[in-house]
Amino acid sequence: MQKDASLTTPAAIRKLVRAGDYSGHTSGFAPGFVQANLVILPKQYAFDFLQFSQANPKSCPIIATSHSPGVTDMPTVGEDIDIRSDLPRYRIFKNGQMVEEVTDISDVWRDDLVTFLIGCSFSFEEALIAAGLEIRNITEHKNVPMYVTNMPCQSAGMFHANMVVSMRPMKPADAIRAIQVCSRFPSVHGAPVHFGDPAAIGIKNINKPEFGDAVTIKNGEVPVFWACGVTPQIAIANAAPDFCITHSPGHMLITDIPNSRMAAL
Amino acid sequence: MQKDASLTTPAAIRKLVRAGDYSGHTSGFAPGFVQANLVILPKQYAFDFLQFSQANPKSCPIIATSHSPGVTDMPTVGEDIDIRSDLPRYRIFKNGQMVEEVTDISDVWRDDLVTFLIGCSFSFEEALIAAGLEIRNITEHKNVPMYVTNMPCQSAGMFHANMVVSMRPMKPADAIRAIQVCSRFPSVHGAPVHFGDPAAIGIKNINKPEFGDAVTIKNGEVPVFWACGVTPQIAIANAAPDFCITHSPGHMLITDIPNSRMAAL
Repeated sequence: MQKDASLTTPAAIRKLVRAGDYSGHTSGFAPGFVQANLVILPKQYAFDFLQFSQANPKSCPIIATSHSPGVTDMPTVGEDIDIRSDLPRYRIFKNGQMVEEVTDISDVWRDDLVTFLIGCSFSFEEALIAAGLEIRNITEHKNVPMYVTNMPCQSAGMFHANMVVSMRPMKPADAIRAIQVCSRFPSVHGAPVHFGDPAAIGIKNINKPEFGDAVTIKNGEVPVFWACGVTPQIAIANAAPDFCITHSPGHMLITDIPNSRMAAL
Repeated sequence: MQKDASLTTPAAIRKLVRAGDYSGHTSGFAPGFVQANLVILPKQYAFDFLQFSQANPKSCPIIATSHSPGVTDMPTVGEDIDIRSDLPRYRIFKNGQMVEEVTDISDVWRDDLVTFLIGCSFSFEEALIAAGLEIRNITEHKNVPMYVTNMPCQSAGMFHANMVVSMRPMKPADAIRAIQVCSRFPSVHGAPVHFGDPAAIGIKNINKPEFGDAVTIKNGEVPVFWACGVTPQIAIANAAPDFCITHSPGHMLITDIPNSRMAAL
């Protein structure tokens, strides 16, 4: 895909994706606009999942839900969205197992499906960069390293998981600034949940993340840990609902919401 | 002193102190009200000192200055304050050396003296306790430990100093909460300046503070460091002005300003 001027607006990118002309990741696309994680569940699981999200807002910050089962637009987050085609890549799960990765879910759509959009770290990383902080995974062109902790989320119905965290190494003074900046963004994971000793939250080897890539931790830096949107994916895998659709990692919904509108203050 | 109900208001305590009936420390007095550090300098040094303060607001947060040289009231911080008698104990310095500790400075008052009131950690400690956090020096009934760092303040005229920091040990999750809470209080030292490795800011031995008392650092806790109001005292000692008055440590001016009014948000 050519990233020309006509494709820098969220609507232009969604149109291209909808037409089937782009199916890659969305990192760095439409700078300044919120990108969202996607979870689609049958109505019978929707209340429990929403309850799980609301009990664990740092791991699973809900940006929007579809206003009723079966509808495919999301008017509060973007114009003319069709949730069945506007993400570059989807994963379809049956009984907790991924069965297919597709670029369009129109043919498996059902009238009982409820859509959840969940905040994503891209938004707060942009705010941190604007504050002059270095994001190591961006500098090193890697996926952010993610770890399964020993910190249990509050469970709700069938949904339960230990918190998954992402990690960005920083000098302590930068970490303090990052805590201030991210505290303004509760809808996109908010302030970190831990810094320093990985073992204190059950991480055995900081160089062996369960998801993503290891990044360099320089002398004088400490690992800083944020609650991560992979947590609800683990909760869904644990719950093993008979049917579920998510985005493919890194292949997000690009919304019309400016990142700045996510700031609490 | 009996801490009966009539002595819980700032004005009542100041009246007692003014009458010469109390000359002890003010820790825990008039809960909810701002207590202030005091610096009094001849007018010839006033601009440089104010410039030092404004360049180093975390170490030297100015709450108020007298509105002109020689005046002894401070109407913006309290009713009927007489700065010459309303603190329990003062220190008089000549050429950078302490020459006397007194309970009243009326007999050394001069028409060229300018008063500076500087924010104090008592205010943010109260906010941290209200947030459910433990303050180790309070739990252990000790003075907070303070350390001279290798971080230079921005100098102004004759005033220069390395930053002095106070330290409170906390678990990382509590430290993150403390950073959020203290960020709301820029006038009383604000957010911490460092956490973790003491050597990174030039502290050789965390168990040997230069001022105050060592406190217990428990397993799983990290030292968290705040800029400290002792910094301007070091700057004054370095500058060695021919004349200067400060409060005695712990013997503060109790103002009529509610701590809550110091919150930026």
